[in-house]
Amino acid sequence: MMDRRRFAASVAAAMAAVAAGERALGQEPGHVATDADVQAAMELAMKPGPRLQVAMVMYPQMTGQDLIGPHNFLCGIMNADVHLVWKTKEPVPLDRGGTALLPTMTLAECPKQVDVLFVPGGLQGTIAAIQDDAVVDFVADRGSRARWVTSVCTGSLVLGAAGLLKGYRATSHWSTRDLLPLAGAIRVDERVVEDRNRLTGAGVTSGMDFGLALTAKLTSRTYAEMLQLVNEYDPQPPFAAGSPAKAGGPMTQHLQAMFAPGNAGLKTALEGARKRRPA
Amino acid sequence: MMDRRRFAASVAAAMAAVAAGERALGQEPGHVATDADVQAAMELAMKPGPRLQVAMVMYPQMTGQDLIGPHNFLCGIMNADVHLVWKTKEPVPLDRGGTALLPTMTLAECPKQVDVLFVPGGLQGTIAAIQDDAVVDFVADRGSRARWVTSVCTGSLVLGAAGLLKGYRATSHWSTRDLLPLAGAIRVDERVVEDRNRLTGAGVTSGMDFGLALTAKLTSRTYAEMLQLVNEYDPQPPFAAGSPAKAGGPMTQHLQAMFAPGNAGLKTALEGARKRRPA
Repeated sequence: MMDRRRFAASVAAAMAAVAAGERALGQEPGHVATDADVQAAMELAMKPGPRLQVAMVMYPQMTGQDLIGPHNFLCGIMNADVHLVWKTKEPVPLDRGGTALLPTMTLAECPKQVDVLFVPGGLQGTIAAIQDDAVVDFVADRGSRARWVTSVCTGSLVLGAAGLLKGYRATSHWSTRDLLPLAGAIRVDERVVEDRNRLTGAGVTSGMDFGLALTAKLTSRTYAEMLQLVNEYDPQPPFAAGSPAKAGGPMTQHLQAMFAPGNAGLKTALEGARKRRPA
Repeated sequence: MMDRRRFAASVAAAMAAVAAGERALGQEPGHVATDADVQAAMELAMKPGPRLQVAMVMYPQMTGQDLIGPHNFLCGIMNADVHLVWKTKEPVPLDRGGTALLPTMTLAECPKQVDVLFVPGGLQGTIAAIQDDAVVDFVADRGSRARWVTSVCTGSLVLGAAGLLKGYRATSHWSTRDLLPLAGAIRVDERVVEDRNRLTGAGVTSGMDFGLALTAKLTSRTYAEMLQLVNEYDPQPPFAAGSPAKAGGPMTQHLQAMFAPGNAGLKTALEGARKRRPA
């Protein structure tokens, strides 16, 4: 004889798993933009007015994907000027592949008032950025007035070194999250964390999810969805090892050991920043 | 009285939905690398031998994310040399944001025999690339001997213009997939398509899924999973509009209309390529 309660519990558990899967995929089943939604989103996007100023800070040995992920979406905002800013306009070397990306504007040329201040991550590059007063001063200054203060990966530690995360909930690359309190922040183990006008993303590829979330805030949900479709962001990773919980202990511990010397460097840099800029 | 069959059907449907959700997330539940797996993957990755040669073709007005997505993963392969190749070593302008990326090698300097030939997409840039004999000749030559012939987004149309997709199943950006037969390919509506040694990705952000899949082929599944964790690729898009099916008709039609002039240009370029290189 079948046990009704066992069946009911199975159904409930399965339904909860489906709902969790949908949440994991960011899906709201049945949400499909109408012609009127698209029309309204385009009208809003083309409304005359001052152009949004987005300042994306570069630095040598930054991780290219951290910056290009959100850049790819933000450049799709019709009334936004997206600036890549660095000390000079010389190519800024990335942390992998021996290539470099061109800035579009110097730190000195960057508008004083920006709608978005963004800082990407890296490892050796982030350590150097935190130890570089010119970079930290720029981030602290623009961040003090920016409408949105944002980062991907270890970029949040640069925001923290500039005093911009004191008392704010924030995230970072999974392997560096325990450094967030040293950067004045409240550690949150999530992929994209919003606290008032701070929006921080987790490691490297979180910049896609972060970039879409930020795009929606600067435009509208429908407009962000259009950019999602333009960029065909319908992720289907072939494996499921993208977080420590999913990858499991052995792999996580192996990588954490690999990252240990770099993370020790980040810790020292953050301690130095705290001494130079006492709260 | 409860209906056992209705219950059983509900459970089966819910379980199927869970399985579909897991497949959508690329998950194989319970697959967690052991210490021995990690050890074996690292030993394989550090095995002495000739270094893998990866040639990623650049061109003006390419889409940066198309290239950086896979580049970010491929550069994590310890025994691979990842080359960004273009006619000169001058910065190659991207299709958005007024920035440019530095090549690491000229087309002439590129090894004759490469393990991977990769071509990114774009729109105006792809049209120009298809019309440029120097580019198409290079792609045809290296592709004729490459171990893997690969692309993301409209890069597959460049492969096709070079005669490399004749009779092969392939994908492209959703809005340009109907041009695949004109490029000699068999259109497949999937995110990453493998046919013998051809591996093609769909639009822009598919480069992440494509990049991981290719990494696994060049190394091992466990090594690719390690790079997935290093780059925290655990996507959680805030919205679910990443494919025409998910975004729905109104948004898809609006964008298809926007893309129409560019796609007409691609069509003309492919027809020209076919005339210049009859099968």
